[in-house]
Amino acid sequence: MKDLGHGANTEIMAIKYNKNPKDILDFSSNINPKLIPNLESYILEGLKECTSYPDINYTRLRKNISDYIKVKPEFIIPGNGATEIIYLLMKSINKRLAIFNPTFSEYKRSAELNGLDILHLNLDKNNNFEINLENLKSNINNFDSLFVCNPNNPNGKVKNLEKVLHLIVENNKLLIVDETFMEFVEHEEKYSLIKYVEKYENIFILKAVTKFFGMPGLRLGYGVTSNKEIIEKIYTYKEPWTINSFADNLSNYIFKDENYIKESKEYYIKERYFLTKELSQIPSIELYDTDTNFILLRLKKNKANDIKEKLFIESNILIRDASNFIGLDESYIRIAIKSHSENEILIKELKKVLGY
Amino acid sequence: MKDLGHGANTEIMAIKYNKNPKDILDFSSNINPKLIPNLESYILEGLKECTSYPDINYTRLRKNISDYIKVKPEFIIPGNGATEIIYLLMKSINKRLAIFNPTFSEYKRSAELNGLDILHLNLDKNNNFEINLENLKSNINNFDSLFVCNPNNPNGKVKNLEKVLHLIVENNKLLIVDETFMEFVEHEEKYSLIKYVEKYENIFILKAVTKFFGMPGLRLGYGVTSNKEIIEKIYTYKEPWTINSFADNLSNYIFKDENYIKESKEYYIKERYFLTKELSQIPSIELYDTDTNFILLRLKKNKANDIKEKLFIESNILIRDASNFIGLDESYIRIAIKSHSENEILIKELKKVLGY
Repeated sequence: MKDLGHGANTEIMAIKYNKNPKDILDFSSNINPKLIPNLESYILEGLKECTSYPDINYTRLRKNISDYIKVKPEFIIPGNGATEIIYLLMKSINKRLAIFNPTFSEYKRSAELNGLDILHLNLDKNNNFEINLENLKSNINNFDSLFVCNPNNPNGKVKNLEKVLHLIVENNKLLIVDETFMEFVEHEEKYSLIKYVEKYENIFILKAVTKFFGMPGLRLGYGVTSNKEIIEKIYTYKEPWTINSFADNLSNYIFKDENYIKESKEYYIKERYFLTKELSQIPSIELYDTDTNFILLRLKKNKANDIKEKLFIESNILIRDASNFIGLDESYIRIAIKSHSENEILIKELKKVLGY
Repeated sequence: MKDLGHGANTEIMAIKYNKNPKDILDFSSNINPKLIPNLESYILEGLKECTSYPDINYTRLRKNISDYIKVKPEFIIPGNGATEIIYLLMKSINKRLAIFNPTFSEYKRSAELNGLDILHLNLDKNNNFEINLENLKSNINNFDSLFVCNPNNPNGKVKNLEKVLHLIVENNKLLIVDETFMEFVEHEEKYSLIKYVEKYENIFILKAVTKFFGMPGLRLGYGVTSNKEIIEKIYTYKEPWTINSFADNLSNYIFKDENYIKESKEYYIKERYFLTKELSQIPSIELYDTDTNFILLRLKKNKANDIKEKLFIESNILIRDASNFIGLDESYIRIAIKSHSENEILIKELKKVLGY
């Protein structure tokens, strides 16, 4: 197996330290700990659909997503997680791609595997990982497409991309925005570029479904664009039946549960406040602003890997060593926001290993 | 959406003729109508695993498949259906690929998308779609890899590939065998090349799980090879987390249900006998030998599409118009073997539309 740079793996760590994976509190991956009500009955309904192939055109699935995000079904490309769409997109865009670092490692991997030329740009570490617009302008002739993750992984702060969008449209480039974590943001409608998709062909948005809805193992994501040329190219390469029947069928329910969506958002607002307040009181930690369901921390006195190993060995807690993100170093860790009681345990144990 | 050449689509046909898809008897896709016992409880167990990412290395899944097929776990590459593995394989083999026609259309599509040079060879239509070994020998210097589907889709007759394998090994080529339908065969152990995988690096076998186990919507398949160079290349291109948690978890149970596997095989032996006997009594039909769960028919007096439309409109039955398989023409249809009562309906309705 290759190391794909996704940091710790519960199974591998558990084997290494002779622990039961079920005993581990996994703060390394960013998933909603709450699930929608009646999930079991929906899944058993989906099981009945498993006895035939999914609709190769995923007509119902695209319609359900369309109702949710208010974009025409023909502009929605469903995928086996957002990951499938990232890889298809890399086959379908022009050769020069700019990526803002630090960010999710699959953008670079998928671009390289498809022979794209990557221009690495830096987010401003000293200004909440914002985009320096002047710097972007000076590079505008050096790329065809710009890849931005918003809110960005690993820091979690949402960006207002209106000015970036105008710059991209003016120069007839393509803006790719990974909005995988956008649903965790308080004023999502203000920041999401979904509202501009039907207006501009210069936008391609990536969405995950299963992170916000707490089921990454279900594997569902999608791409959204009105760019017919890119849609055409993606379907030239797309493999058939990549989305399983459970995910296909669950789309009948998951997006309509407004109460769940509202409560999840409120939960994260409250829990972000709690966790950042507690963490900010630990003197040897520098905290980065976040609007989503994870928090980036800089350890002023410790190495990320030391603290990760200590937390695992002494407290059965797995965190993300963030040192392998381009532009970060061995002082960075990332933690997910989990249930309140789990977050309390994290604070207590983190203080302990840091010597407080 | 592109037409990927998979024949009829229940949803599209239902819309065209204003029918409810649930009323349609689908004889166009080849799926075991029986399911393993206790499936619902396994699926609900899998749901619990959906709340985290699947193990990126699928260690447990590969171990479970390994116990089933008696091949080392490191030689097993799990996929989102056999389809994912076909596409990865096409990125990982040498440039010249020979394909025996008629066969499943995804081999050609995936090879073309990855820029391979395809040599189209013909199975012998007048001899049960066998491979002409002399013809293969005379072409041996014209390809690097040979793709064979065994039993072949759309005709279903199993082939003994021992001589082909020896020819391939002698000439240091690669033999790719799609054994998606092998588990339906009576003496599977005699025909499957799985037993030679650890001995020869010249074999790559494709396996589907979900067809034989009646759940194509679950999406699980795998590739098997001891060719380290190909394994390495496949993992260079493989996307993370392509297999969902339901499939991953179900591997704990599905392969161990020896009783289900035995009963399914016995069911198909009996039902193949029934259906071929009945069909052979229809004068305007030529029947091809089959060892699996579908049957290829040549209509002596009718066009495939006419009979397909008639069966759909008059009898709510969907069959596969097989005229778009390379090397076949508009007189060919393919039908799946379904439950006994459904098979009886098919015979009755088919006789009716053929005028008997």
